[in-house]
This record gives sequence, structure tokens and C-alpha cells, in this order.
Amino acid sequence: MTATYQRMVLASRPTGAVTPDNFRLETVPLPEPADGQVLIRVHYLSLDPYMRGRMVESRSYAQPQKIDETMIGGTVGVVEVSRNPKFAVGDTVLGTLGWAEYGISDGRGLMKVDTRTIPMSAYLGTVGMPGVTAWYGLNRICQPKAGETVLVSAASGAVGSVAGQLAKLQGCRAIGIAGGPDKCRYVTEELGFDACVDHREHTDIRSMTRALKAVAPNGIDGVFENVGGVCLDGALACMNPFGRIAICGLIAGYEGTAIPIHNVFALVAMRLKIEGFIVSDHLDAWPPALAELGQGVASGRLKYRESVAHGLAAAPEAFIGMLAGRNFGKQLVKLA
Amino acid sequence: MTATYQRMVLASRPTGAVTPDNFRLETVPLPEPADGQVLIRVHYLSLDPYMRGRMVESRSYAQPQKIDETMIGGTVGVVEVSRNPKFAVGDTVLGTLGWAEYGISDGRGLMKVDTRTIPMSAYLGTVGMPGVTAWYGLNRICQPKAGETVLVSAASGAVGSVAGQLAKLQGCRAIGIAGGPDKCRYVTEELGFDACVDHREHTDIRSMTRALKAVAPNGIDGVFENVGGVCLDGALACMNPFGRIAICGLIAGYEGTAIPIHNVFALVAMRLKIEGFIVSDHLDAWPPALAELGQGVASGRLKYRESVAHGLAAAPEAFIGMLAGRNFGKQLVKLA
Repeated sequence: MTATYQRMVLASRPTGAVTPDNFRLETVPLPEPADGQVLIRVHYLSLDPYMRGRMVESRSYAQPQKIDETMIGGTVGVVEVSRNPKFAVGDTVLGTLGWAEYGISDGRGLMKVDTRTIPMSAYLGTVGMPGVTAWYGLNRICQPKAGETVLVSAASGAVGSVAGQLAKLQGCRAIGIAGGPDKCRYVTEELGFDACVDHREHTDIRSMTRALKAVAPNGIDGVFENVGGVCLDGALACMNPFGRIAICGLIAGYEGTAIPIHNVFALVAMRLKIEGFIVSDHLDAWPPALAELGQGVASGRLKYRESVAHGLAAAPEAFIGMLAGRNFGKQLVKLA
Repeated sequence: MTATYQRMVLASRPTGAVTPDNFRLETVPLPEPADGQVLIRVHYLSLDPYMRGRMVESRSYAQPQKIDETMIGGTVGVVEVSRNPKFAVGDTVLGTLGWAEYGISDGRGLMKVDTRTIPMSAYLGTVGMPGVTAWYGLNRICQPKAGETVLVSAASGAVGSVAGQLAKLQGCRAIGIAGGPDKCRYVTEELGFDACVDHREHTDIRSMTRALKAVAPNGIDGVFENVGGVCLDGALACMNPFGRIAICGLIAGYEGTAIPIHNVFALVAMRLKIEGFIVSDHLDAWPPALAELGQGVASGRLKYRESVAHGLAAAPEAFIGMLAGRNFGKQLVKLA
């Protein structure tokens, strides 16, 4: 065991786009677990768009990340020392230990996971928070019926990839939006979406609308929105009556770009429902979602892809890249 | 009985704002009712914002109004000749005979109304389509609980006045937005809203937000939106978590002004639900709504105000005025 470990703290809040200066790598002494605690070596850190919101002080659902404290984040790791009877050395555990190589926990918020048929890292993606997010938004908000058309933006990402595959499994036509030909090809050829529109080729509402109409000739019934901006306005222009739009994220605006919704008349003309949601509000959805997602991954029905950065020092650049769409699939940082 | 009557037809579709030229008054022969038909003399014509949408050809829930045909519209009138056993001469009937002094009907879509305790004209307002619209949006979409704060824009209008009064009757704090000090005073002093913000004094989002925060210090839980633009963005900035926004109309944009929604992040941060609706989709709501609204008007609990134009020739200016907010309460045209 090392006597020190590294952690990444929030050094300053971004004023415009996030920069590496907003983070600071620190070497700190490795704590001794007290009675009832366990010491966990983190193997994978999850990088997720929601962290961007926590970096600033704004009116939001969550407290902002504190300055000089370890960046929050989901982790999967292995118990190295246990002074808690519920956990044994060698247990693989999911938790939220943050951007750090090691963490101490009293067991609250820690979940043992089975890595025999599901890789450890998948618990941070398809079989974890992003997967449940997709499951909730699709099933509880979009509520698509077989034969309907569902549009998913950021379709190759950790959340979008699951939303679209679940829609396909329910007999829907799934249309993706992704950035660049490689991601679009992956979305259709690997994930099995019926079509994918490259948002880099359609950067204004009119062009995006035309592209979506071409691949969704019968209109769109459900939207799983991760992006906002042109993606959302294009979708609004294609909605069928009584369409449902789950707003999971609006990453197009996270770095400060204004992303107003222009096609507001569609709301009334097509009697649309738009609902923003946060998966942690809906704990009742997690058990059924995780059961379904775990079976999907174990059986190979649900596919996923990961972008893995190596070492904590690489985390800021990986995070900044993810906000710009440079990741390809679930963004992880491998720490052990 | 006159041998001719007047009707107003759509002469041309507006390209920008509606102008009097878009209408044409015609004198046409009075028809003889055939077997099964009734001839109705229209006493009041209802002018409603939805008519603006019908004047143009756009992707909408309804077919556009045809050129050279009588403008659509709700009417209340009295049967003058009956060749239908279900209607007697002298019956007061609600219908959609359009912008015309007389109309022929086979009885379909015609409803006898009781004018003993409810004035005839109220069936075009509080005890008619506008009232049911308010009832539906408030009860089925906003779903406010006692103690919650509900914001209603166009609060002195036919729909908004009912939405706010119903919210008050349910134990909510009701905040209005209206144009000008007279309307605001009416909203609070006559209709009993707790406060009313004058949108003419708050023409940008920041100013509107400050004004709304001042009168809704505990935040807003439900919004009944008739206007859009600054009203809606101001509301979004004040929403409490899990707030509900019923989009009934967006009159700020009907004459061509762009009314994008800027505060899109609130959708996720506050997990908001926005739902556009059209009351004619929800026929199941009409009987309970009309029963409640009728009792409210008959008992004096629900108050309302009317702007009455006289004669069909005055209808275009009254309609154009309504789109600009120059009416005060339900806009009617008295024809007999």
C-alpha cells in the first residue's frame, strides 16, 4: 500500500469554458480506515456532463462543488482494507469517491457489484447512473409505443447509446444525432439505430430539420435530449402531435453558448410535453432499470463503447474533451 | 326577418400583422332552413386568439380558415325558425356559426343554454371554451396544491381570469401578469389575485424576473401561460423544483415577433414539465368543467369582464386590438 495518494480538487470556478487551471492535482496522505470504514482503491473514475454544472454556483438542484475539495464523481474500485463487516477485502464496490486514487467509506452509498458477467467499468456506464438515466427518460417520459419514432441526441454517448438501444428493443424506430461520421457509423452499425444525423453537417435549425425529416419521414414521437440548441429545435420542427421530449441534458450550452429554443409554437400546435429530469430524484426506477440493463449487458444485447484516459492527471483534459464531444462513448479515467 | 344578412369572410392571409384588408364584409341572401335545420340569429360572436393561427397556412392542429369563406368563430344566438324537433323558436343556443349575423344548423354542434342565471354572453367566455381551457390547463397540467403559487399571464383575459380565480378557490397564491395599471388593478381588486405584474413596465427578462420574484418570494409552482416571450422566461427563472407549465397560448408571438425561450437550463435544473394543450382534444373535461364554471358564475364567485364591439363591421378592428392587448376581458362582438 502506498503511503500517499493523488486527488484532483476544484481550484477555481470556470468563468467561460472549463480550463485545466480550474483543477489542481494534490498528493495527500493515505488515511487509515476507522472502525466501520473501508479503504477502497479506485480502478475507474466516471466523467459525466453533470459535473460541469457543479463547478459553478448557480440555481440548481445540487450544491456546487466546493473549492479546494476533491471533485465529485462516481467510481468503481476494490476494497483494500475493511473494518466494516459488510465488506471484505477484494470486494468490487461502486461508490462516489470522487476524482481520487483512494477513498474511505463507512459503507453508506457503497454497493457491491458482481463482475463475473459484467465488466467493472460498465457499472459506471450502461449498468450504472447513465444507463438508469436513459431507462428513466425513455420509459417514464418518452413512453414510446412500438412503431413510434424516437430521436436520441448524443447517441453514441453513455446515456444516448442506451436510450436508443432500449427504444429499438421496444420495437421503435430509433434515430440518433451524433458528431462526425465515425460516431454516426457506430450508432447505426454497432448500436443498431435505424439512422443517425451528423450534427456537424447540420449546424442551423433549417438544415437539421431537413436532415431529421429525411430519416424520420413519419415524424418524431419521442425525443431523448442530451444536447439542446439546434438538435432540439430541429426535433421540435418534426414532432408528431402529443410527442414527448425528455430533457436529460443540454450539453451544447454547458460551456456558455446560448441555446434558446426557437420553435416554441410547436409546443401548442403539436401539444407537446417537455420534461426535464434528474435520475437521482427517481430512486424507485433504479432497481428495475439496473436489472434490465445488467441482463442486457451480460447477454450482449446492449452494446457500449468506452473512452478511457489513463491516470488522474489526464482527467481534466478528458473532461474538457467530453464537453466538446471528443470522447467516443462513456468517458472513464483508469486509475488502477 | 331580413331577406339578407351580413357575414365577414377571410379575404387574404396576413403576411405580417393582421390588417383590416384581410377581411371582407359581405351581404348575402338569408337561407331558408331545410327539413331538420334551424335558422339562428347570432347575438354574440366570440373573438379568440386561436383564430389568428387559422388565418395562415401552417403546420398546426387545425385546418386553416379557407379564403372567401365565413371566418370561423363561436357564437351564441336565438333560434328564429326551427324545422328540427329538438329546437324551438326562442331557444338560446351556443354554436360555431362564425362571423355572421345569421346561421343555419342541422343541430349538430349546437347546445341549448340556460340564460336564467347565466347571461348568454358568458357561454362564450367563463362558461364556455375559454373557461374550460382555463379549467383544463390549471387542473390537469398545473395541478396546483393548496399553498402553492400559480402564475397566470394575460390574467385579465377570458382564459387567464378564470385560471387565476380557480387557483385562488383551490387555496393557491395567484400571481397575474397583465398589460397596464388598469388591468393589473382589476386583476387584484376585482378578480382577487394576490398580485399582478404589469408587463409593460418589465419588457426584458431580467426586469420581469425581478418583478415576479418580488411578488412570488417562495417561487412559482405552476404557470398558466397565455403569452410567452418575456413572461415565460421570467417565470422559468422563478420556478420551484418540479414546477408545471401549461402552455395555452403564446400571443406575444402571434403577429410575427420571435419569442424564443432563453431560460432553457431551468428545465433540467428545476425538473420542470412544460405541456402545450388544446382544449378540444379533451372532451372528457368539458362536462365537469362547465358544471363548476356555471355554478361559479351563477353564484357570483367567478367574476369576469367583457369588451363588446358593436356590429360585424367592427369585428376586424376588435380582433386586431385583442391581439395587441387592447381588449379588457373577454372580447365579444354584439350582433343583435
